[in-house]
Amino acid sequence: MKVAIIMGSTSDLTKVEPAVEILKNYGVKVEVRCLSAHRAHAGLADFMKEINEDGTEVVITAAGMAAALPGVVASQTVLPVIGVPLSGSVLDGMDALMSIVQMPSGIPVATVAINGSKNAAYLALQILGIKHEEIRNALLNDRKAMEEAAMQANEEVVARFS
Amino acid sequence: MKVAIIMGSTSDLTKVEPAVEILKNYGVKVEVRCLSAHRAHAGLADFMKEINEDGTEVVITAAGMAAALPGVVASQTVLPVIGVPLSGSVLDGMDALMSIVQMPSGIPVATVAINGSKNAAYLALQILGIKHEEIRNALLNDRKAMEEAAMQANEEVVARFS
Amino acid sequence: MKVAIIMGSTSDLTKVEPAVEILKNYGVKVEVRCLSAHRAHAGLADFMKEINEDGTEVVITAAGMAAALPGVVASQTVLPVIGVPLSGSVLDGMDALMSIVQMPSGIPVATVAINGSKNAAYLALQILGIKHEEIRNALLNDRKAMEEAAMQANEEVVARFS
Amino acid sequence: MKVAIIMGSTSDLTKVEPAVEILKNYGVKVEVRCLSAHRAHAGLADFMKEINEDGTEVVITAAGMAAALPGVVASQTVLPVIGVPLSGSVLDGMDALMSIVQMPSGIPVATVAINGSKNAAYLALQILGIKHEEIRNALLNDRKAMEEAAMQANEEVVARFS
Amino acid sequence: MKVAIIMGSTSDLTKVEPAVEILKNYGVKVEVRCLSAHRAHAGLADFMKEINEDGTEVVITAAGMAAALPGVVASQTVLPVIGVPLSGSVLDGMDALMSIVQMPSGIPVATVAINGSKNAAYLALQILGIKHEEIRNALLNDRKAMEEAAMQANEEVVARFS
Amino acid sequence: MKVAIIMGSTSDLTKVEPAVEILKNYGVKVEVRCLSAHRAHAGLADFMKEINEDGTEVVITAAGMAAALPGVVASQTVLPVIGVPLSGSVLDGMDALMSIVQMPSGIPVATVAINGSKNAAYLALQILGIKHEEIRNALLNDRKAMEEAAMQANEEVVARFS
Amino acid sequence: MKVAIIMGSTSDLTKVEPAVEILKNYGVKVEVRCLSAHRAHAGLADFMKEINEDGTEVVITAAGMAAALPGVVASQTVLPVIGVPLSGSVLDGMDALMSIVQMPSGIPVATVAINGSKNAAYLALQILGIKHEEIRNALLNDRKAMEEAAMQANEEVVARFS
Amino acid sequence: MKVAIIMGSTSDLTKVEPAVEILKNYGVKVEVRCLSAHRAHAGLADFMKEINEDGTEVVITAAGMAAALPGVVASQTVLPVIGVPLSGSVLDGMDALMSIVQMPSGIPVATVAINGSKNAAYLALQILGIKHEEIRNALLNDRKAMEEAAMQANEEVVARFS
Repeated sequence: MKVAIIMGSTSDLTKVEPAVEILKNYGVKVEVRCLSAHRAHAGLADFMKEINEDGTEVVITAAGMAAALPGVVASQTVLPVIGVPLSGSVLDGMDALMSIVQMPSGIPVATVAINGSKNAAYLALQILGIKHEEIRNALLNDRKAMEEAAMQANEEVVARFS
Repeated sequence: MKVAIIMGSTSDLTKVEPAVEILKNYGVKVEVRCLSAHRAHAGLADFMKEINEDGTEVVITAAGMAAALPGVVASQTVLPVIGVPLSGSVLDGMDALMSIVQMPSGIPVATVAINGSKNAAYLALQILGIKHEEIRNALLNDRKAMEEAAMQANEEVVARFS
Repeated sequence: MKVAIIMGSTSDLTKVEPAVEILKNYGVKVEVRCLSAHRAHAGLADFMKEINEDGTEVVITAAGMAAALPGVVASQTVLPVIGVPLSGSVLDGMDALMSIVQMPSGIPVATVAINGSKNAAYLALQILGIKHEEIRNALLNDRKAMEEAAMQANEEVVARFS
Repeated sequence: MKVAIIMGSTSDLTKVEPAVEILKNYGVKVEVRCLSAHRAHAGLADFMKEINEDGTEVVITAAGMAAALPGVVASQTVLPVIGVPLSGSVLDGMDALMSIVQMPSGIPVATVAINGSKNAAYLALQILGIKHEEIRNALLNDRKAMEEAAMQANEEVVARFS
Repeated sequence: MKVAIIMGSTSDLTKVEPAVEILKNYGVKVEVRCLSAHRAHAGLADFMKEINEDGTEVVITAAGMAAALPGVVASQTVLPVIGVPLSGSVLDGMDALMSIVQMPSGIPVATVAINGSKNAAYLALQILGIKHEEIRNALLNDRKAMEEAAMQANEEVVARFS
Repeated sequence: MKVAIIMGSTSDLTKVEPAVEILKNYGVKVEVRCLSAHRAHAGLADFMKEINEDGTEVVITAAGMAAALPGVVASQTVLPVIGVPLSGSVLDGMDALMSIVQMPSGIPVATVAINGSKNAAYLALQILGIKHEEIRNALLNDRKAMEEAAMQANEEVVARFS
Repeated sequence: MKVAIIMGSTSDLTKVEPAVEILKNYGVKVEVRCLSAHRAHAGLADFMKEINEDGTEVVITAAGMAAALPGVVASQTVLPVIGVPLSGSVLDGMDALMSIVQMPSGIPVATVAINGSKNAAYLALQILGIKHEEIRNALLNDRKAMEEAAMQANEEVVARFS
Repeated sequence: MKVAIIMGSTSDLTKVEPAVEILKNYGVKVEVRCLSAHRAHAGLADFMKEINEDGTEVVITAAGMAAALPGVVASQTVLPVIGVPLSGSVLDGMDALMSIVQMPSGIPVATVAINGSKNAAYLALQILGIKHEEIRNALLNDRKAMEEAAMQANEEVVARFS
């Protein structure tokens, strides 16, 4: 199981790291790259050719401002491409969201929340889960744990106010 | 191969149909439902249990306004859930986009463009493609055809202006 | 007299507390829960059944981002449901406002200002006031006090600038 | 049972009528007025005094643009006040929504969707329902009918696509 | 020469003070009040009657959020009313701007920039200037000084970069 | 009594005409010009010199898109300048509103609603009214008539729904 | 003198044609292409190599929605690249504007108004004008004609209202 | 080679400086001015006449809020004018962006990102590059260096995550 993560700038590094961590915790191999659609055009094309043939199953992209990266990546693969809009500019990520989610017909990008790299990882896992039973089962366990944690938090809230 | 499509209202029908058509053209079995998160709560829960166990691999959801459907669906499955924000209100779908894309950590929705049901279908196919080689190959052929059509359109534009 | 307050996340706790305090000051019994529509689906449904039968008269809900909680709560009761959009994300609560106020026909949510949990409490009291004379009278006294405080503040402003 | 409906302009008439109809169908007495906060200041104040003493239980207000009406009404009563933002200007009701929902602490307005006068009526009924058992029961029946209609619509969608 | 300044809340005090100072520097008598349209309804009406008859020539109003104050003031006078939208909420004053500038026909509010109380003072002076020659002349001198200061700043910029 | 009206483009003509009509009805002399800040720079400067010395008392400006006209006019006079943002582009006048209302300190523009040329006229009359008693009295009469018309409209609404 | 114009879709054709016409009227050779950044990746790269070496001096790009084309073109040339955001989606071109103007440091796109292809042509001419005296002179004449036309329109407006 | 840079206020100085530095590094002569369209009208007109005749080839303008400067500059020259919207107000530069990019037909402003003065410099260089071979060559080298730096950053990211 292999997921590629491409960010547009090294300044996005800390926003992308949580995704790497989650994927690794699920035993997924992660290839991380910093390849701007605007500044590393050729390098990006090379990497796209590579991941189209090395068994990579999902691509996560993260970019801010006029975030062309997710769409450009999507145009060079038929692997599912997830896009994370980042809040790098004064516009708080609305520019990146518009640039990523409003893709033309035929080249979709699976967009998650602004700065939502954790959910990008979970979405990648859910996609992997349709093929890899162990991921799906791990996700189901994780959901149960998430729900139990939520109910536990609820108990604490109940206790606090009574 | 099976994809479930859930819309929130019968008024969304014509906006959802292109996705059904695309998926069927690729030989994917499609189950279509109209189950509002707000008005068909129990019916939706029943359908979610069903698709969690009948081999459905991707869920497409489409809803307008305060579009809770995609998130509520996502909370009841670990299958990948795609969300299509629809422009049903005076706000042209920005309300639905905000309601679908800004999901909290742990429950992702793969959001596509406003009224982007075609891309929801293509994204579903790309997800299926990581497991079903024939879908991936069909998508690759489709991309080539799309590119050829684009180059053909370009030829016509060149001709027109020379 | 009983009001239920449901928040979507423990991170919303401090934003919800002012509502609890106001309601308690008016002698209203308050049940507080932390039950995300997305992460505590079953727990939320259980609580909804409970409050539909235990004499609860108003439900206050508070959530941020793609805030499905108020609408999902509203779909499971005919009690009046108040929604407080919270500014949890980079979008300053506009995402939550869109997700809460733009409800489809038949399932209303009484939406107050972003982070407006105090007003959620006052609105709940006004609703209780149509049934409980003592609440209505207390609100009328409170309004008089509010107006007197406002006029007193005005006096201080007049003094300051003369 | 009595509900007052105040609109800001006669041009809002057709947008308000669905609320009148719904309330009358539930056997609620409805007093309708057209009293702009800006153009009928004294007439509005007179009507507010009247409804504060004649047993009116809920007030619905509807206004477009810089919609001061709901807040001004709310400042003159402790009855629950519902606000419907109307899309009268080129800004599609976003101006009215901002003017209605962002109320300061102490004077809440229960805001519903842009042009959401139907939901204003349902919210009024839900508020009445905490006091009038027959309204609550009628709402519960209505919800069941709504759910049945939704499931029937779903059946038709299923049939259409199979 | 007399100008009235009404703010909606004492928390707006520091944002309003620059206007007071500018007006006083021009020898204008300034009456400052803190009279919320929502919380000091009667006090505001009293003050409006007063200024309609005591020779006040311009009214400046400043308010945040659902800023009804400027419009309500404008509805009770035919004196020119200036509105200053304040950035009190998480929406950075866009809510107040919408609530102030989008007035219905017949009741205008002269809106200035968000937090633009200085310009409210200058606009008041320009209005006074059509009647009071000494104010117009002072403004003309001020403009010359402003232009000279601007040209002086330009000289410093030129020097800095050469 | 003289008011100058400057529009930025002949395509704004029909949006400006209501202001001309209202002013003429009040016996105000109106000078109308079409002088774009961008396309008729010198002509605009000439006209500004003219109105600064011929007794003009208020200037109304109307412009769409990147509406520089009101600010540029304001920079060349100390007469009160009213700005009407027009909805000429796909952005429905939000671009013009931003360009007109957000003026820097020292050069105010009295901004009215998008397409609000009627209110521009009323605001001009209110400004004239501080100097010309007959205008103030006419406005007071007009307000009374407006209120009576509003109350008459209310009577019709009451009749309709009873 | 040569300008390249690249649009993203044949549906943009009529919006791009005015630019072609203006440029041809100035005697500029125009190469028009329809090469989507997402659907004609290789064809676009080929064309970029071509125009980087055939004496093309300016590139105009026009695209709607998640408009990656201008930025991708800009990343493959050091020729000045002009971007025209098109209003193709329900968001009226705001999505395209965000996607085009918010470019990261080092790869600028000269953005003009939404649907502003005429201004893209004029900007291209102004750029050519710094090198080609005849273009600069033609532009100066054009400006004079534009100003004369503006003054003529003003005369007609003056006549109409007097 | 000469570029003029005009800012609207000395408070914009630090946001403009990076552009000056980049241009000087490329051996371009830079004239910097602080000439507000609203406060230094005559000084700006004088400077425009000067640069129209002294061989200046590109003009960079930077302004915040109701940023009339770029358009006013563009109306007084046929040189290419670049506009940098600055985030000076609470609206984070969206007001300035609207005021700069939405220019009417015939008077274009080449708009770059909010606070994008670096890209204003690069765009100016690209424009100069169509005439001055040495600039074009320097830009090509710079791009290569930029790409190498990007690939180097990528190497570090790869190392970090493996």
